[in-house]
Amino acid sequence: MINQLVKKIQKTNAPIVVGLDPMLSYIPPHIQDAAFREYGETLEGAAEAIWQFNKGIVDATYDLIPAVKPQIAMYEQFGIPGMVAYQKTVDYCREKELVVIGDIKRGDIGSTSEAYAIGHLGKVQVGAKSFYGFNEDFATVNPYLGSDGVKPFIKVCKEEHKGLFILVKTSNPSSGEFQDQLIDGRPLYELVGEKVAEWGEEHMGNAYSYIGAVVGATYPKMGRTLRKIMPKTFILVPGYGAQGGKGADLVHFFNEDGLGAIVNSSRGIIAAYKQDAYQGFGADNFQDASRQAVLDMVADIDGALKAVK
Amino acid sequence: MINQLVKKIQKTNAPIVVGLDPMLSYIPPHIQDAAFREYGETLEGAAEAIWQFNKGIVDATYDLIPAVKPQIAMYEQFGIPGMVAYQKTVDYCREKELVVIGDIKRGDIGSTSEAYAIGHLGKVQVGAKSFYGFNEDFATVNPYLGSDGVKPFIKVCKEEHKGLFILVKTSNPSSGEFQDQLIDGRPLYELVGEKVAEWGEEHMGNAYSYIGAVVGATYPKMGRTLRKIMPKTFILVPGYGAQGGKGADLVHFFNEDGLGAIVNSSRGIIAAYKQDAYQGFGADNFQDASRQAVLDMVADIDGALKAVK
Repeated sequence: MINQLVKKIQKTNAPIVVGLDPMLSYIPPHIQDAAFREYGETLEGAAEAIWQFNKGIVDATYDLIPAVKPQIAMYEQFGIPGMVAYQKTVDYCREKELVVIGDIKRGDIGSTSEAYAIGHLGKVQVGAKSFYGFNEDFATVNPYLGSDGVKPFIKVCKEEHKGLFILVKTSNPSSGEFQDQLIDGRPLYELVGEKVAEWGEEHMGNAYSYIGAVVGATYPKMGRTLRKIMPKTFILVPGYGAQGGKGADLVHFFNEDGLGAIVNSSRGIIAAYKQDAYQGFGADNFQDASRQAVLDMVADIDGALKAVK
Repeated sequence: MINQLVKKIQKTNAPIVVGLDPMLSYIPPHIQDAAFREYGETLEGAAEAIWQFNKGIVDATYDLIPAVKPQIAMYEQFGIPGMVAYQKTVDYCREKELVVIGDIKRGDIGSTSEAYAIGHLGKVQVGAKSFYGFNEDFATVNPYLGSDGVKPFIKVCKEEHKGLFILVKTSNPSSGEFQDQLIDGRPLYELVGEKVAEWGEEHMGNAYSYIGAVVGATYPKMGRTLRKIMPKTFILVPGYGAQGGKGADLVHFFNEDGLGAIVNSSRGIIAAYKQDAYQGFGADNFQDASRQAVLDMVADIDGALKAVK
């Protein structure tokens, strides 16, 4: 799957991932109204609105991008109907041959981590049969519990040729509270980065490992250091756009082969029609605004990468 | 809810929580067979088996215990039908007036953490209406992302009079890889413990905070230190029984008021009928074996607490 991700990035020339993190407030009135007419103002109605919104954005952008990253929390808040919308979104994106990164940030130990891995990346055994659960291609994982938490995920990834992105340095302002604490003079995130590189050796693709890392665009200097510590690790970079990261901040997350990183934008793409730059499209044409925002983001990153060559 | 938890612990004299972490291999053949006859060997069949198993254990133990802790991963692995079984289990336990600790170990940032909090502890707004999602009483939370990740949970907890247990020192062998790393001579878990105590001051119950901590029974010395660092923090203690923790290891997790900790056992209770000590009950009477295992666990902890008085 990491080889497929690399291939798709090369084909689209777009090292980006669209974050499908729908808030109801992002969804244009005409979609909400139609969903509520059919299902009422219910969890089912909200789930239908989310699904139709996602479908619109995917249909308008799938030929330009290699991957999507649905944020499961945004679905989970609507209970079971929300989870059904998540599943439909994952399935639809896979049909469209997009690589699906489930942003689930799960993490536990032993058989519990294995259960998460099975539910999201693998197959579960029921009697003589086995079934895929949510069936994403990659999942994000929290490393706080150490190897006992991560290795069961890697076991399932090896069986299924799937991958992970493990949190190393997150994009938020307070990420330093624990992640930046110095251990023998070096920050915790470097130690976690070294572990990710080590875990990654257990499950290598062609040029990159199936086991990737998450490092926020908002910390470009740390990104440069981590790039060196984890040379064969693909880095998922959140924090571009709405969170303040810019194309020029991103160059050090990439390797000299122009690969090694994939940059996420969520709100900046899916709610583009609400921004000044794209409001000419109008809410009725939210998909077209999202397509234009993807094109602009690709150009921004491409320009930044070319500027350093 | 923390006051209610304390009251229920005092009433039952049982500072324990039963971990509802059903693996299919724990579920007696007669329950699996009945579920598969009705739904086939499908995800729905597995979910029905889990639900009937849980119901049997809850019916046999609810008068003895203050709380249950369903581990969502064990349900999530069965996809949507598994999540439905999780929801049914939470709802049923609340009907039985048990305090429900959702062992979800979620954690993200900002609006994403808030979405998890809303989905599990709060109400989500849909148009003019609002709905509970999974509606547990407490949730476990991962602290790796710092205050930005935790405060949105606390916000929802305050609105709903609900609580958290934040991972501080987990029970697994490799928990030290990151959690024990020394920062200015003190381990990371102490720093996290201090933060939990600080966050806890924002949402106090009568004697204890709504914001608790998770500290593994397998690390009793660290438990003693953390007990002092977080005097008003309720500690959820996993790792008793199957993971190796014993009653005598637990005394230092409690305060002198005999409160301040709640000890989890999962496999040791729910799969008691599979252990030598309880196999006389037989698989057909798995509930009775679980009830006896609860009584024995309460006696073990009570004895250990009395021995130090």
